[in-house]
Order: sequence, then structure tokens, then C-alpha cells
Amino acid sequence: MALEPEQIVRLEEDRVVLLDQRRLPEVVVELECRSAAEVAAAIRDMAIRGAPAIGVAAAYGYALAARRGGDLEEAYRVLAESRPTAVNLTWALREMLDDPTPERARELHREEVERCRRMASHAAELLAPRTRALTHCNAGALATGGYGSAVGALRTAWERDLVEHVLVDETRPLLQGSRLTAWELEQIGVPHAVIADSAAASFMAAGEVDCVITGADRIAANGDTANKIGTYGLAVLAAHHRIPFCVVAPTSTVDLSTPTGSGIPIEERAAAEVSARSPARNPAFDVTPAALIGAIVTEDGVHRAPYTESLAGVVARA
Amino acid sequence: MALEPEQIVRLEEDRVVLLDQRRLPEVVVELECRSAAEVAAAIRDMAIRGAPAIGVAAAYGYALAARRGGDLEEAYRVLAESRPTAVNLTWALREMLDDPTPERARELHREEVERCRRMASHAAELLAPRTRALTHCNAGALATGGYGSAVGALRTAWERDLVEHVLVDETRPLLQGSRLTAWELEQIGVPHAVIADSAAASFMAAGEVDCVITGADRIAANGDTANKIGTYGLAVLAAHHRIPFCVVAPTSTVDLSTPTGSGIPIEERAAAEVSARSPARNPAFDVTPAALIGAIVTEDGVHRAPYTESLAGVVARA
Repeated sequence: MALEPEQIVRLEEDRVVLLDQRRLPEVVVELECRSAAEVAAAIRDMAIRGAPAIGVAAAYGYALAARRGGDLEEAYRVLAESRPTAVNLTWALREMLDDPTPERARELHREEVERCRRMASHAAELLAPRTRALTHCNAGALATGGYGSAVGALRTAWERDLVEHVLVDETRPLLQGSRLTAWELEQIGVPHAVIADSAAASFMAAGEVDCVITGADRIAANGDTANKIGTYGLAVLAAHHRIPFCVVAPTSTVDLSTPTGSGIPIEERAAAEVSARSPARNPAFDVTPAALIGAIVTEDGVHRAPYTESLAGVVARA
Repeated sequence: MALEPEQIVRLEEDRVVLLDQRRLPEVVVELECRSAAEVAAAIRDMAIRGAPAIGVAAAYGYALAARRGGDLEEAYRVLAESRPTAVNLTWALREMLDDPTPERARELHREEVERCRRMASHAAELLAPRTRALTHCNAGALATGGYGSAVGALRTAWERDLVEHVLVDETRPLLQGSRLTAWELEQIGVPHAVIADSAAASFMAAGEVDCVITGADRIAANGDTANKIGTYGLAVLAAHHRIPFCVVAPTSTVDLSTPTGSGIPIEERAAAEVSARSPARNPAFDVTPAALIGAIVTEDGVHRAPYTESLAGVVARA
């Protein structure tokens, strides 16, 4: 059974309740946030993660602050600054400004999941029968608040009998692939195998990968795409092996105000996530140049290069 | 203080004693092997690993069997079959056939370390001042029985004031980079930082990597090189970013009887090393085509393409 949107994040009377993703799937526990600041902390500490999902959580956090008569400017600030790379935070908060109600936040959540279903359908049309896909990180229901972007596409494609197998990058350092994507694929029933991130190249060389499909944290106007660290390397490797590389993300992830990837802030997280005892560098995201991306699929359809043109009309209609 | 050869593996009266590398550096403990079969188990279970180091351990195990009057054919077989990819096992055992004494095994160990010093000197000549290197897995003293191959080269280069910084791939699934290479660089005093394997590409794109330098588990006659999983992907990424990619390994790693990389057996280890709960694939090695390798450095000097010619005269003189 796939995860339902309200299992992932929801607004109750006086709190935002979310499935704590940090120790899934071993430990299935909910986290209760009783203020916008607590929602921001949950986002910062990655109890909830994934660009569309943290946008939804921020919307709920803002609605919670409004209902409690809190300082809405402060709520906006703390939620918007909880993580720097995904544009969905500020997008969702801006959407909430005129109508900071629970109903509006729930509508935004519902529409984000509906976008996933639509983009999944578009993306599935790109896949041939018996596709052996490779995906990175978790672009599943947990990352979007329901259904998923890249994993949603694989889910729809699986239901259309187009998917043979999915290789899942474990996705160090926090193992979102090994912990979350493998769990979601198991729930949906899709045959899969986890691999060390560094093994992707050899599976490509062995002809065991027909396409690489990932989500996105922010897409610049020219198509440059920030996503979980490791995505850029996969795109280079896919190009080297002539394997299609495809990004699936809702329009809430597209940031037309950022012309190119060089304008996307890249979060560097604590060294301790990588090593408990040695100096370490821990960029959480990287930027894949548009030239390496074969298609960007949103709920509007399949966008192709030149992305500056094909993405020009894209607006997230919440 | 760098590790001494006899700290890594040695033959005592009735046993082979080796530094157990599985839980280093947190747990520093020696493992005692009282038969060739126990040495083979230590190799198989990766208490000792690294192509030259397991060759040395096998030589000691064989000498131990000879001293105890054991079945030498069986000792040869169990040691040779303990792991499939590195050619050093059979090389070292063949070297022991005519003179299976402790003295011969110790000589072979001493010569393997001496090879490392010589190849390190050759490799250091390739590096410009202020080099920022990236390395994968552990090609250090622990991997070779002393001094190291790729890490030995960085050590010599550091002593010649040529190294500014080393990025260390953590090297999943067993973290030989994060646990062993970072520990060795700390002992030598070389500035370093551990990174997730998948982060290498973004550091290359940012211009923070001047060269990639790794060891090898087996080098075919045409220069195709088997090494820890992830090496091939790094070589593709290095080529994409026009960064020199260099292999440092003793001639005991060169297998002229295997014409190309397709003839090198690739060990697939237990899925549980990658994931405790999901299906997983776990190839322990990959093959980097010679075309992606800028130089192969042995104790004889720097070999360049075409490797079929430049490696043709290479013989490990033990």
C-alpha cells in the first residue's frame, strides 16, 4: 500500500503532524510541530525533506501561525530560511500570503499531489516497455507530500506495465534512496535493488540502465537543475553511456527568477553527516547543467531544450 | 606516525598476525590466524584487504602451512580462492612455491613495500606544486602491507611540498576511504576532507580537483584496470572535466595473461553490505578502460598509452 498524503504531513487543530523521515523505515513515528518555528526545525533537521514536501509543510506551518494569531512575518521568515536550495519554500509561502487558512494549505497540498499524478502520466509516456530505470535520492511520495515525482513516474509506468526493474542509488550521506525510495517501491510492488552510489557507472557500462530519472529541488530558467548531491555526476555518466537523463518535478520547483544554475544557493550541511571523526565536506546538492538533461517533465508536459523557451510559460498555478 | 609494515601483517612462530581493518580506526585490534584457512578467511572477510596486502598475507599463510607440515596444495587452493579479483594472490603464492619459508615471505613483503616507495617517487614527479588530489578507497599502507600505492604517492608528494589538499571518497559500502585513508592521511599530516562518493563530480566541476589518483586490484595487458567499485565512474568524470586520472600500483598487480578488462573476474559481495533490508546489488570492483587512464605508475616508472606496448616488458621481480 502506497503512502497517503495525510500520512506524510497534515494540519490538525493546533499542530502540524508529519511522518518523521529520519529513521524510516525502521522506525515509523510521527512528529508533532506546535509552531511555525517547530515546523522550520523539522524541515532544517530533515524530519521532512524533498522540495515539494517541505513547501507543503511550510504552508501548513504558516497556516498554523495564522490560526494561533502569531507573528506572521516572523513565521514567513523562519520557514523560508529553514533550507536554502529548494525554491518551493518561498513559492508555497507566497501562495499562502493572501489566504493563510488551513483550507488554503490543504488545497495547496492536494494540488501538489495532483501535479505529481499529472507529471507522472506525462513522464511514463517517455518510457519504453521493460524499462530498467535508475533513480537517485527519494523523489517519491515522501518527498512531494504524496504520489511522488520521479518515483511517481515509475509508479504510473509500472501500472502501465512499462517497468522491469529499478536500481536505487542508496544516496549518501543520509541514505534517502536506500531507506525511503526502496521502501516506497516495495510498497508499490516494483522490483528494485539498492546499489552504492558509486556503482551506477558500472551498471550503465554493463547495459543494465535504460534511463536515469530524478526529481529536482530547483530548476533555473535555462533548465539548470539543482538536486541531491550526486545527480550531476549521474547526468555526466548517463551522457557518456548515451542513456536518457530525465528530471520530473512540479512547476512549484521551477524558478524563472533565477536565470541559471550558478544563481542557485547550494546548502552545505554538517561534516558530521559524512564522517564522525575526520574533516569532511558535505554539499547537499549539486547543479546539473541543462545540456545534460534530455527532458524536464512537469504537470504541464514534457519540456525539451532549449529550456529557456520551453520553460518560459511555466507558472505553478496553485 | 605512519603505519609500519609489521604492524599491518607479520608472521610469528605459529601464526600470522594482522591488524584487523574492519573496524579501524575506532577499534584497533589484531587478528591471529593459526592456519592457511584462517588467513584465507581473514582475506575473504576483509580483515585484511588491498591487492598487494592480501598477496603478502597469502604468502605468510602459505609459509605458515609449510612450517606446520600442512597440505600445501590445499593451502595454495584456499588462499588463491579467497578473493577472485586481485591477481596478487596467485602471484604471491607462485612466488612462494619454490621456497615456502618464513624468510621468503618476509622478503616478498619487504620488496612489496620497497616497490611502493619507488612507484611513489615516480608518481610524485607527475604532480605540480599545490596539487589538490582526489582518491578513492584505500590505496595506502594498509592496502599494500606498508607505505601505500596511491596514498604512498601522495605521501611522497607531500614530503616534496607538492600537495595542498586531498579529497577522500568515503567509498561505500565498507567506507575504506572514510575509515582507512583519512586515518592514514591524518597520521602522515596531509590536509584532507572526506566526501560522499557522489560528491566527487561537483568538486571537479568547481575546479577543486587537479588530479584523481587510485590504486588497482588487477591491470590487464592492455591497461584496463580493475579497482574498487566507483573507480570507473571517477575516471569518466575526470575525463569529462579534463582532469588527469592516474593509477599507481606495483607490478605484482599487472596481469599480462589477461588481455583486456573483460577477462577480469568481478567479485559480487553480499547484498547485506549495502542494505540490511532491501534487495541490493554489490559488485565490489569495476573496470576502468585503458582509454580513460592517463598514466599507470609502477615501481618501474610511468607507463603511458598504448599500454599493450608500455606494459609489455613489465614483470614483478620478487
